[in-house]
Amino acid sequence: MTGWTVRCQQDVTYRISGSADVFAPGNDALAEAAGIRAGTTSLLVLDRTVDALYGKRIDSYFAGRGARSVKYTLDPGERVKTADSLLDIARAADQAGIKRRSEPIIAIGGGVVTDLAGLVASLYRRGTPFVRVPTTLIGLVDAAIGAKTAINHNGHKNRLGTYFPASHTLLDPVFLRTLPARHVRNGIAEIVKIAVMKDAGLFALVEADCADLVDARVATTHGQEIIERSVTAMLGELETNLWEHELKRVADFGHTFSPHLEMCAGADLLHGEAVAVDMALCCAVAHARGLLDDESLRRILTLLQRIGLPTEHRACTSAMLAGALADTVRHRDGHQHLPLPTGIGSATFVEDVTSAEISAALATVRRLQPVAASR
Amino acid sequence: MTGWTVRCQQDVTYRISGSADVFAPGNDALAEAAGIRAGTTSLLVLDRTVDALYGKRIDSYFAGRGARSVKYTLDPGERVKTADSLLDIARAADQAGIKRRSEPIIAIGGGVVTDLAGLVASLYRRGTPFVRVPTTLIGLVDAAIGAKTAINHNGHKNRLGTYFPASHTLLDPVFLRTLPARHVRNGIAEIVKIAVMKDAGLFALVEADCADLVDARVATTHGQEIIERSVTAMLGELETNLWEHELKRVADFGHTFSPHLEMCAGADLLHGEAVAVDMALCCAVAHARGLLDDESLRRILTLLQRIGLPTEHRACTSAMLAGALADTVRHRDGHQHLPLPTGIGSATFVEDVTSAEISAALATVRRLQPVAASR
Repeated sequence: MTGWTVRCQQDVTYRISGSADVFAPGNDALAEAAGIRAGTTSLLVLDRTVDALYGKRIDSYFAGRGARSVKYTLDPGERVKTADSLLDIARAADQAGIKRRSEPIIAIGGGVVTDLAGLVASLYRRGTPFVRVPTTLIGLVDAAIGAKTAINHNGHKNRLGTYFPASHTLLDPVFLRTLPARHVRNGIAEIVKIAVMKDAGLFALVEADCADLVDARVATTHGQEIIERSVTAMLGELETNLWEHELKRVADFGHTFSPHLEMCAGADLLHGEAVAVDMALCCAVAHARGLLDDESLRRILTLLQRIGLPTEHRACTSAMLAGALADTVRHRDGHQHLPLPTGIGSATFVEDVTSAEISAALATVRRLQPVAASR
Repeated sequence: MTGWTVRCQQDVTYRISGSADVFAPGNDALAEAAGIRAGTTSLLVLDRTVDALYGKRIDSYFAGRGARSVKYTLDPGERVKTADSLLDIARAADQAGIKRRSEPIIAIGGGVVTDLAGLVASLYRRGTPFVRVPTTLIGLVDAAIGAKTAINHNGHKNRLGTYFPASHTLLDPVFLRTLPARHVRNGIAEIVKIAVMKDAGLFALVEADCADLVDARVATTHGQEIIERSVTAMLGELETNLWEHELKRVADFGHTFSPHLEMCAGADLLHGEAVAVDMALCCAVAHARGLLDDESLRRILTLLQRIGLPTEHRACTSAMLAGALADTVRHRDGHQHLPLPTGIGSATFVEDVTSAEISAALATVRRLQPVAASR
């Protein structure tokens, strides 16, 4: 029998834009992004915290346009990021009777909600568009601007997922006003991540504002610039590697040990907190290798500490970290591809980090961070 | 805040090739396609029927190359095409410890197995390559050559899925020797589908060989040409529309009412049988509209009947067909986009078929097919 080679090309374009007070009655941004008008149906996915704070305002937004909205609400937190939730949201989509292309699913919330609703959207009828309205800082600068969707499975963080960007994401900093301080810190961890890897100027802005960045919910002197530069830096990584054909990714800084740590620590660590612990550890590895100088190591660890992020956690044993690395190596197809900073704003990849180095780095971080060691 | 437009392009290339007796010890095709060599691990997904017939031969193939194979076996049939199976296969992938890019999942079976394992592969770590070895005729000419993966959910056929082609598909007609006659007919339905829509020459070949096509398991005078032309015709549709950005698809002929019919009829109808019933109905609609002449209608219905495919089913009531069409309209984003033949080898789309027309078409099919009406 003969053979065939099938060659196809997919163009993916998606839009991210700022819009203050998205659910204000006169704000057309979401209506335009999601095709909301009289007679349309929208399935909204959100958690109970967001619903309690903004539910009535959201209902009014749709009612004011004569549009039908069907709300699917989840418990807040990582524990709902499961296959059960995914299957149940798909049932809600059936029940709502949304059309395949012109009635997008709308995800309103943090990374859990946007990752989960995004996976439903990518699978439902093999792809139904979705629109994201992140309500957390980690959503604004990281989770809701890329293409990754996911659920946790079999004890593994984000084990099942797709690359399926929202057709439109609306960044509304007004939501940050009601965000708990811990969740502001959680988002700053991802800002520090991208700053350390590729934008020294961004790092300096975070340093400059760090005294009141959390309390002011990022409404500081450089707050808007910090968010915009973070988004721009992150999108620069995504635009050239959206489907991760290249597994060496600077955006994976802080994401080598943290997926496993996050699952081990449970409710004790938010995603960004686990990322901060991972970054501190990797900075210590880089420093021990002579890749990162004393001053840069000090600046990074000090910034994390001033923000109030952990740099260490009791679940970090040598055995746990070795197991985490082994799974990440499988994820990176047999390679460590470990991103390490070579200064603030620059990075390299290493392939040969040993267990002994990791144990030594752990000891270094514990020695340098006595305040955090009691966590 | 500013705005960003992210533009990305994905090139997808996949390979389909013929290879007789894939699991013969000396046949390198699969080893090359799936990177099987000493020390590698492969997760195989197959059903118990295929395992009973070919399991030992498959085991020997891997053992002979010093490679580890982990088999995940399913009950045969549509009933395992569920989220539970998907999640359990993902656990098996964790257990096997396969690497993300260099150790593809291998699906060996009919459309259920290749659709299901393909969905696991597309989701596992957001994409692990997979290789398909179809063992049924419907797999060879249809299910295993495209990009669609799926599970059934909430009573709906293929409600959740992705577009994720296998990196390589090996077409091995030797498997057809052990295929039950009913499953050969099942595959011929999809061949008739694509022939009616776009290849009159293929239709004539099936007509010419139809007396012994089933008994000879497609090893007839024109058997190989029939398979090759079917694959070529189908790939022509896929290559320009792999992600179904265009929802007007001639390959949807026979797939407007059949997804719902198939779920209603349960074990009583295989996929291709439901497609045959749908095609007969649509041909009658086309004939009543003057799109399809008497002679073409007669040739199509006669061919289906001579193959031994049903053209009618007791679950086809006017109410069921109206419900099926309503859901398909949602799937086609609010449009019927109903593909109808305008002769043998040519097609058009209509948008305004009424319930009355469908009821009349059902009566026509029943009148013209007294033999099948007793099913």
